[in-house]
Amino acid sequence: MKKISIFLCISLFFSACEQKKEQNIEEQTTINDEKIVENNFGIILHGGAGTILKENMSDSLEAAYHNVLEIAIKTGHQILENGGTSLEAIAATINVMEDSPLFNAGKGAVFTHHETNELDASVMVGNTQDAGAISGVTRIKNPIDLAIKVMTHSPHVMLSGEGAEEFAVEQGFELVDPSYFYTENRYNSLQRIKDSEKTELDHDGKSAFTDSFIKDSKFGTVGAAALDKHGNLAAGTSTGGMTNKKWNRIGDAPIIGAGTYANNATCAVSSTGWGEFFIRAVVAHDISALMEYKGLSLQEAAREVIQKKVPALGGDGGIVAIDKDGNMVAEFNTAGMYRASMNAQGEMAIGIYKE
Amino acid sequence: MKKISIFLCISLFFSACEQKKEQNIEEQTTINDEKIVENNFGIILHGGAGTILKENMSDSLEAAYHNVLEIAIKTGHQILENGGTSLEAIAATINVMEDSPLFNAGKGAVFTHHETNELDASVMVGNTQDAGAISGVTRIKNPIDLAIKVMTHSPHVMLSGEGAEEFAVEQGFELVDPSYFYTENRYNSLQRIKDSEKTELDHDGKSAFTDSFIKDSKFGTVGAAALDKHGNLAAGTSTGGMTNKKWNRIGDAPIIGAGTYANNATCAVSSTGWGEFFIRAVVAHDISALMEYKGLSLQEAAREVIQKKVPALGGDGGIVAIDKDGNMVAEFNTAGMYRASMNAQGEMAIGIYKE
Repeated sequence: MKKISIFLCISLFFSACEQKKEQNIEEQTTINDEKIVENNFGIILHGGAGTILKENMSDSLEAAYHNVLEIAIKTGHQILENGGTSLEAIAATINVMEDSPLFNAGKGAVFTHHETNELDASVMVGNTQDAGAISGVTRIKNPIDLAIKVMTHSPHVMLSGEGAEEFAVEQGFELVDPSYFYTENRYNSLQRIKDSEKTELDHDGKSAFTDSFIKDSKFGTVGAAALDKHGNLAAGTSTGGMTNKKWNRIGDAPIIGAGTYANNATCAVSSTGWGEFFIRAVVAHDISALMEYKGLSLQEAAREVIQKKVPALGGDGGIVAIDKDGNMVAEFNTAGMYRASMNAQGEMAIGIYKE
Repeated sequence: MKKISIFLCISLFFSACEQKKEQNIEEQTTINDEKIVENNFGIILHGGAGTILKENMSDSLEAAYHNVLEIAIKTGHQILENGGTSLEAIAATINVMEDSPLFNAGKGAVFTHHETNELDASVMVGNTQDAGAISGVTRIKNPIDLAIKVMTHSPHVMLSGEGAEEFAVEQGFELVDPSYFYTENRYNSLQRIKDSEKTELDHDGKSAFTDSFIKDSKFGTVGAAALDKHGNLAAGTSTGGMTNKKWNRIGDAPIIGAGTYANNATCAVSSTGWGEFFIRAVVAHDISALMEYKGLSLQEAAREVIQKKVPALGGDGGIVAIDKDGNMVAEFNTAGMYRASMNAQGEMAIGIYKE
């Protein structure tokens, strides 16, 4: 059994990034008028934020999470190292988590009130600021791939429900049977929440937001942000939404500006958390705006939004982000957030709890 | 027949607002610890932006537009004058336009590719930054009212499709028969676009974005932004979406941050235009962020986003907005935008074309 042993101190990690940044400025070369910052690249991911406490986690489950986080981050990193784009890297990284039943995205998606699985995803690239998003699809194995296809092969940014699946079929996607998304664990969570709501006579669904077990099992998202060797940023987010959700609720994951944002002038951000508050705080774009208009660093901007603005509204969650110089940040105001990052030197950091 | 005669010079209008602002600062009184800026209020609306040229408009149609714009702005203004909230004012103003077949919202909604009408709306209030949105509803007479109900009576921000209608029924909304939204004019537009696409063998739907007739008949939105006597801002947007739209496309109208944003620290904004670009530019929040972080005035911020940032991406459209001091802006980069505003002094401005 693999033990989690890599907890690089974030500050050391950042100072390493800073050193690398200075080094890379000296290494800049110009090839065909395109500014290439050699070897300056990196990728960071999250697998959801919430009340994730070590005392509630078995060693084997912790190891299982660690294993998938490591595979996911290395998959994207390898692509960047080989000169691939940030978009290719975040897609491959997110696919690994979508295919794992451990995360609330793709295969591990939570169940809606009507015992279906409705998936949302979004993606944005920083050079052209092109974006794509889908919401409420039920037969797409890897929603992030469809969000990318919306961006690259439709005149639209956001498609939803059956229409999005119709587009997927036109684009050659295979639809999976909705039963693909069944996992016993998620199904049991739905039943537990429904039982709890019955007991509490919580007809307005508000206990869902005050009980920590329910809240954590309700939310969860995967996402990644990357900078490639060409200097281009990209971010993407994918989710199964909210356990027991009703009324075709849409959270922040498919909303450009809230769940996902990328801009080569600033940073690329993927969010995870209590989606309603992340929409109202326009979290991902606000971090970028604080950098662009107020001159904050990525770390300062992320802290301002996640530790002050979102809690001031009453929400919680976190983000992962990378800036145009390769500095990476994992910022959250919850007990834990599944996260991993890997920089140009191949230094990997994996974390689950607050450090 | 009523002639359009009121074209107050925007700059005079703004300087009047500025004078009023100074005056009001002196008039500030404190009642129950709540800062009341007496009589400082205002409302501004749009009814869509596009290639609206005087030479293509009959006198009678122009008068009809003018008439509804005047009723709409006076309706909201009356509420503000009587001490009502900015939320009540924008809802009533938007309802007037939703009930008119002249605008692409509610009764005048355009047709989708499948000859249905799918409506989107969103709303946000500046004091609490609460927000509500719906997308893809087909049986809601006044979508802005349902967006408000999502904000006030659900734990969510955004609901969609049949789920949103299920919520509406639970909240006592009457569903209208989808045939309510039929208008001959909109139906003919759909047929004309479909014919044109056949001729052009435009299977990817891109001509929809390059032919000006098609583009204008595709887009269109109504919206309003207001400041009330209590110092609270609100904005709302409602649309029938895009003629001939496929794949359950979602535009910017129901996206908080893109189509609608309100923050008492800055301004309230409602957008109209080529939705894909407004989502990618996070237009409404970006205007607020430029004010909050860069110290721009509302006019400067709106100009930066609508005249520089959106066109730089390749998009067009406009916004109406009001700031926390009551300054109002109608900014657009198209030939025209249906718009009206009314300030605390009861000065009304109505416009259709570029001045």
